[in-house]
Amino acid sequence: MTRKIRLGAFLPGGGQHVASWRHPDQPADGAVSFAFHLQLAREAERGLFDAYFLADGLATSTGGLSEGGPARVAGFEPVTLFAALAPLTQNLGFIATASTTYEEPYNTARKFASLDLISDGRAGWNVVTTATEGAARNFNLDQQHPHAHRYARAAEHVEVVKKLWDSFEDDVFIRDKDSGRFHDRDKIHPAAHRGEHFKVAGPLNVSRSPQGHPVIVQAGQSEDGRALAAATAEVIFTAHQRLDTAQEFYRDIKSRAAALGRDPSHILVMPGVAPFVGRTEAEAREKYDRLTALIQPEDGVALLNQLTGGTLDLRGFDLDGPLPPAPPTEGMKSRQALIRQIADENGFTIRQLYQWVASARGHYTVVGSARQIADTLQEWFENDGADGFNILPPWLPTGLTDFVDLVIPELQRRGLFRTEYEGRTLRANLGLPFPTNRHAAARAARLAAE
Amino acid sequence: MTRKIRLGAFLPGGGQHVASWRHPDQPADGAVSFAFHLQLAREAERGLFDAYFLADGLATSTGGLSEGGPARVAGFEPVTLFAALAPLTQNLGFIATASTTYEEPYNTARKFASLDLISDGRAGWNVVTTATEGAARNFNLDQQHPHAHRYARAAEHVEVVKKLWDSFEDDVFIRDKDSGRFHDRDKIHPAAHRGEHFKVAGPLNVSRSPQGHPVIVQAGQSEDGRALAAATAEVIFTAHQRLDTAQEFYRDIKSRAAALGRDPSHILVMPGVAPFVGRTEAEAREKYDRLTALIQPEDGVALLNQLTGGTLDLRGFDLDGPLPPAPPTEGMKSRQALIRQIADENGFTIRQLYQWVASARGHYTVVGSARQIADTLQEWFENDGADGFNILPPWLPTGLTDFVDLVIPELQRRGLFRTEYEGRTLRANLGLPFPTNRHAAARAARLAAE
Repeated sequence: MTRKIRLGAFLPGGGQHVASWRHPDQPADGAVSFAFHLQLAREAERGLFDAYFLADGLATSTGGLSEGGPARVAGFEPVTLFAALAPLTQNLGFIATASTTYEEPYNTARKFASLDLISDGRAGWNVVTTATEGAARNFNLDQQHPHAHRYARAAEHVEVVKKLWDSFEDDVFIRDKDSGRFHDRDKIHPAAHRGEHFKVAGPLNVSRSPQGHPVIVQAGQSEDGRALAAATAEVIFTAHQRLDTAQEFYRDIKSRAAALGRDPSHILVMPGVAPFVGRTEAEAREKYDRLTALIQPEDGVALLNQLTGGTLDLRGFDLDGPLPPAPPTEGMKSRQALIRQIADENGFTIRQLYQWVASARGHYTVVGSARQIADTLQEWFENDGADGFNILPPWLPTGLTDFVDLVIPELQRRGLFRTEYEGRTLRANLGLPFPTNRHAAARAARLAAE
Repeated sequence: MTRKIRLGAFLPGGGQHVASWRHPDQPADGAVSFAFHLQLAREAERGLFDAYFLADGLATSTGGLSEGGPARVAGFEPVTLFAALAPLTQNLGFIATASTTYEEPYNTARKFASLDLISDGRAGWNVVTTATEGAARNFNLDQQHPHAHRYARAAEHVEVVKKLWDSFEDDVFIRDKDSGRFHDRDKIHPAAHRGEHFKVAGPLNVSRSPQGHPVIVQAGQSEDGRALAAATAEVIFTAHQRLDTAQEFYRDIKSRAAALGRDPSHILVMPGVAPFVGRTEAEAREKYDRLTALIQPEDGVALLNQLTGGTLDLRGFDLDGPLPPAPPTEGMKSRQALIRQIADENGFTIRQLYQWVASARGHYTVVGSARQIADTLQEWFENDGADGFNILPPWLPTGLTDFVDLVIPELQRRGLFRTEYEGRTLRANLGLPFPTNRHAAARAARLAAE
């Protein structure tokens, strides 16, 4: 089978761009509208996207400034939202973000297994460590744990969750009414985990789900983040402004995964792309200018602070001057470096910087005709830059509709994208293997050795 | 308006009775079938029930013995399941159980506010402290915290959640595209909570939901449990075998609530009832005998152990002999006492005891014609025993269908039950007030004083 581009859709109901809520097409209450999220899910499914992706934070500021634009101050919790959307869609995957720092693995394992059951195998977990001081203060801490501590806990959290997802072998249930045999007790297994951060006995009390394990997704860019991703992730979201840095990341992740004994084709690297699509380049440019003109300075400043984990408070600085130097931080190290790189390379003032990052929050903004955008995606896809892309329409729903109506057909014409879903599960559509239950595998190995 | 009976439906997809999965009508895979849970929700809505209720534990045993019957060894996580059912129903409330001991208030507040948004105001939270050793071992503990510690944490957990639900005043969002004013920042409030168990800054990042606060439900029977319920609960599930103990409980709760300055009519007491309904008493009796005959001894023994929080392991004892004396426990004190009371009052052997409790797990089993069952409900309702009932059909779906087709019309004929839903929200249907945001109330009070 020819390798195809994988596509995720990043669709926060309040819009991606910091000013998107002011766009005439965008429902101003989209962030809290279930009906609007359903419309977006169905539109993404019409475009044959692999998955709907939602980021998640565990804090907002009292002034409503910390979430990258006022429309994101308050919305839904992503797992409950996706559970509600799942029965109303057929093939679209749902990748929800959940924190390894502020949740317990037994709860994490349950909610994603349950989402996978409800969606008939379309769930994914975007594993994050939640790098903001605001979140720490919502969970009994005065300041957050150091970066290395969060990543060590994250690695163990994922390990425990996977053990719990193997509590039940696939054929554990007999359910024979006549004999009264409901299950094979030898096929239920404890997790029996005792580690540095967690002690979890198991077994889980949610059934093994259609995918065995919901798909594991990550977005870490730092050294700790790359190590965790190479060890556990099946999909990696990443942010790059240029093909060369994307290639460095892509090759690094694939070689780390291979060094750990993993098949590099089972770890899909998907950079974020914010497309402004026009029938012509000029039309696309108009769309970009129109949205940029709607940004309010205080929202732009707040966005930069949020993207750097609350460590870049530029209130009071001259917006037409350069970025001041940064203090050391335990927060979002990699994202802060990326933002500073964008400013340095372009010689941006603070205002120019927030105008640029507003559309994609550090991801790659492409402005052009469908053909131009397809050229860029194809170039990255065919040159070790990407296995697919996480599409971040700057405003909704028409930013998504433009992509579905104009770019998707162009990619299909080039043979780069599916014309129908390959299967029912997210794993099947992404071409990822179905994980064998570790206990069933161990039994098979024992039998083979006998 | 005449006072009406409130009805909750306790509908675990795997069935209520320990042997229900063996009943010919019950899908043996009901516990893990989303389609079956949807069928049950629609049936409950046809019967004009106030709410669908799901209990929840945070453990199962390796042998699959601890959940009161094998069909309950693995199912869904209730909040995700209810989120998925909500858009597929119109008026039914959804009361999900969540633990104050093993979750953090910021996460609890988010998921229930999100469920309330998704369901357009039909969410309720059954507050539990999770009293099993098995759960403790899934959350980093070797044994569970003492009863009093769990209840102190529960009271503070509920307090923090309510503060977080008041983060946004109802009219906080302006969303004026022209002026660029999205919200009124003076109407976003921190929780600023610093207590013995929690430090939570807030505000929440999920919007204030249609009910303001999802309905607070509890089921505590112990001294600590009654105190917590009287202070915070709006619906109380309770288990009684006789009208006199139900009356003692009802009057105690109402007077405790009044002593705390609450309106006693805003705290609804709903005992559990497991009905075997026939067109005649003989037919009902046949249904009871048919189900009881399907119980396997080891499931009956496991049920008694589970109902007493894992402190009553009767394996190896003579099933036709009496209950042995119990050791002291930090577990489910009130439930253990109730089980022992049933055995003592009836002179039951172990076998007779589990046969009796199997249908309702300590709740009140009624076997009779629709008229006989309506008589019982009416007697309790009109004599300070109950404001309504939590109906636990022993098997599904026909145990529920019998109640909807036979008992509901009888209650309606007597003017005791609604003939259509009063409103869209769970609060409206239960006749509970809409909680005023504390910050809006404080502002109004300040203005009145000026």
